[in-house]
Amino acid sequence: MALIVQKYGGTSMGSPERIRNVARRVARWKALGHQLVVVVSAMSGETNRLLALAKDVSPNPEPRELDVMVSTGEQVSIALLSMALNDIGVKARSYTGAQVKILTDSTFTKARILDIEEANMRRDLEGGTVIIVAGFQGVDELGNITTLGRGGSDTSGVALAAALKADECQIYTDVDGVYTTDPRIVPEARKLDHVTFEEMLEMASLGSKVLQIRSVEFAGKYKVKLRVLSSFEEEGKETLGTLITFEEDSKMEQPIISGIAFNRDEAKLTVLGVPDRPGIAYQILGTIADANIDVDMIIQNVGHDGTTDFSFTVNRGEYPRALKILDEQVKPHVGARAVVGDNKICKVSAVGVGMRSHPGVASKMFRTLAEEGINIQMISTSEIKISVVVDEKYLELAVRILHKAFELDQPTV
Amino acid sequence: MALIVQKYGGTSMGSPERIRNVARRVARWKALGHQLVVVVSAMSGETNRLLALAKDVSPNPEPRELDVMVSTGEQVSIALLSMALNDIGVKARSYTGAQVKILTDSTFTKARILDIEEANMRRDLEGGTVIIVAGFQGVDELGNITTLGRGGSDTSGVALAAALKADECQIYTDVDGVYTTDPRIVPEARKLDHVTFEEMLEMASLGSKVLQIRSVEFAGKYKVKLRVLSSFEEEGKETLGTLITFEEDSKMEQPIISGIAFNRDEAKLTVLGVPDRPGIAYQILGTIADANIDVDMIIQNVGHDGTTDFSFTVNRGEYPRALKILDEQVKPHVGARAVVGDNKICKVSAVGVGMRSHPGVASKMFRTLAEEGINIQMISTSEIKISVVVDEKYLELAVRILHKAFELDQPTV
Repeated sequence: MALIVQKYGGTSMGSPERIRNVARRVARWKALGHQLVVVVSAMSGETNRLLALAKDVSPNPEPRELDVMVSTGEQVSIALLSMALNDIGVKARSYTGAQVKILTDSTFTKARILDIEEANMRRDLEGGTVIIVAGFQGVDELGNITTLGRGGSDTSGVALAAALKADECQIYTDVDGVYTTDPRIVPEARKLDHVTFEEMLEMASLGSKVLQIRSVEFAGKYKVKLRVLSSFEEEGKETLGTLITFEEDSKMEQPIISGIAFNRDEAKLTVLGVPDRPGIAYQILGTIADANIDVDMIIQNVGHDGTTDFSFTVNRGEYPRALKILDEQVKPHVGARAVVGDNKICKVSAVGVGMRSHPGVASKMFRTLAEEGINIQMISTSEIKISVVVDEKYLELAVRILHKAFELDQPTV
Repeated sequence: MALIVQKYGGTSMGSPERIRNVARRVARWKALGHQLVVVVSAMSGETNRLLALAKDVSPNPEPRELDVMVSTGEQVSIALLSMALNDIGVKARSYTGAQVKILTDSTFTKARILDIEEANMRRDLEGGTVIIVAGFQGVDELGNITTLGRGGSDTSGVALAAALKADECQIYTDVDGVYTTDPRIVPEARKLDHVTFEEMLEMASLGSKVLQIRSVEFAGKYKVKLRVLSSFEEEGKETLGTLITFEEDSKMEQPIISGIAFNRDEAKLTVLGVPDRPGIAYQILGTIADANIDVDMIIQNVGHDGTTDFSFTVNRGEYPRALKILDEQVKPHVGARAVVGDNKICKVSAVGVGMRSHPGVASKMFRTLAEEGINIQMISTSEIKISVVVDEKYLELAVRILHKAFELDQPTV
């Protein structure tokens, strides 16, 4: 008997029929004798409907109240799934984030989980009850409802798995696993049976939408075994999806490159003619961080004439706000010459733990792009990843040629 | 400076535009220097949408889970109104039933309020914050979300007014006060400036939908001054609605009859040939009460041949269930001859505190109905009310002729 945490996303919960499907899947796992905690998202479209309604009432909704409102999407889902389970004879009980309680900080709309109380859940689990938990939400220490930000249901699932020391955390989605790249762009993309935690982390951070990055970080930190599966496979035809392994567990030879990831949700900002002195990066990025804007790539070139240019990327949705802050606060304060930006860019990355022991990956990547005349605007690297920023219009082309260049369309030996 | 509790129903909160209207109305009261607690219902249609969704997933939704789900309607409303208030510069803060906390028993979908914590609200009120509370919901002592049953937002408003010892509880609806009868049936119906609490209680119990009966009971018990107003009157053209007075406060001459109320939401059940012995009423109604079905009128005639007939009315929605219980449990148990019922009936009532000092109201009522050939099926009286059950098809006719017979279309002197 294992303790399994399952997470079902909005598409899996998208209609009454699909919710009954999820209930039958949960019932099959339960019938195998496992203890089950099921985390669910709002029905697809519901969160956007609620956000649109808020915008209809208020141009700039109060974040605290936005969380009160948006958290209802998952609250509806937990009730519906519990009803569906009880209907087929499986004892189930819904829990909101506050009822669990999933304690978070008070950063409304982007809260971070601090602690999870497990006493109530343990009691129900031991009594044979399936626990249905609202993803994406928590409660701060004053009792305010908080949300973890979009996609936060994955994080809820992994955090619950960590708190309960679950044997496995299964993330059910509308795809049947992690692919070498997005099959909508490269039809030859292949499903990976396993991928290392570090690769997954890079892919998620690069915009691969199978798993949300914070959930992967959490899984890494607490060594939660994660599996990505499809919730649409028929009974009897289920596959095992993709298991996210910890490298040290793996005895297999790793491929050099596991996948090509990309992210079109990026924008680039450059502060030109910044005085080249200590503390300048902090003055620029500190102001951005204070506004709760996450920064992705950061590049500062060697200066000349006592000044330098400082570039970074942010989520495209934050672009107007970041531009305004740089213009109105940072530029006069640090005495920069100008602020420029571009929100028609994308990031394309090659990811693979094998690149640690195989030099030449970067040069192969740059050559491949150059041969197609694609100009590279920014470069950033880690031990297991090389990312480039290019004009958005080259996204599909860049992904396709890199996927082919690294032979990801060929079956692994 | 007064402490005022306002309650806005689903129609008042029916669209973003209307919610902004409510916010402006609240802001005007706040600008007069009052402390405000605002209770809101779900946007009109929302509760029905949620109930339909539940039915789509489960033919017989688990009551606990139904409450988790349906309570989200009001949760959305409180967030939207708080946003709208903050937008126009009025500090506001939303509270779910659990956040208040409004402690109820655990009768899901029909919970009763046991206690209201006022500490958090007091602190916010003293800080000048307008408090927005989700109506219709509470939380039991185990932390389960409960709802008070349909129309329960009025009860929430009155209960909060009682707990906070508010100066007045204002119930905003889509009508501008209490009328002598429903103007859709009798165009000559007049608005009452005041009505006694007892009359209001009878009218509510008789199906007059301006106020929910439990809220009136609560108001009476805790001597909460209630006022019914319209939320659709324009700024500068607001009227004072109808004040619900306590008779002892009133120095005015009371009219004999204040209004004609009616209720088409009734069904009649009769147990025929019941042994005429002590305890039989308890055996019949106890079983019905155990099934959580509310009984309205009860009639038992003198028996003959050692048996009697026992009739009562229930809410029409409970009719099939009540009939089944009588047939399967009560009939064999008490040895009754047969069970019959009729759900095509209605109840029409004349209500007025003046009838205490003016005999002849009943005979005038019966004569008026007889002259139009309307057969009376059941009669029930209280000190200030006479109710008759008649065939549903006579409803409009009966209301019109009684309204005229008691001269309710004439202005009061």
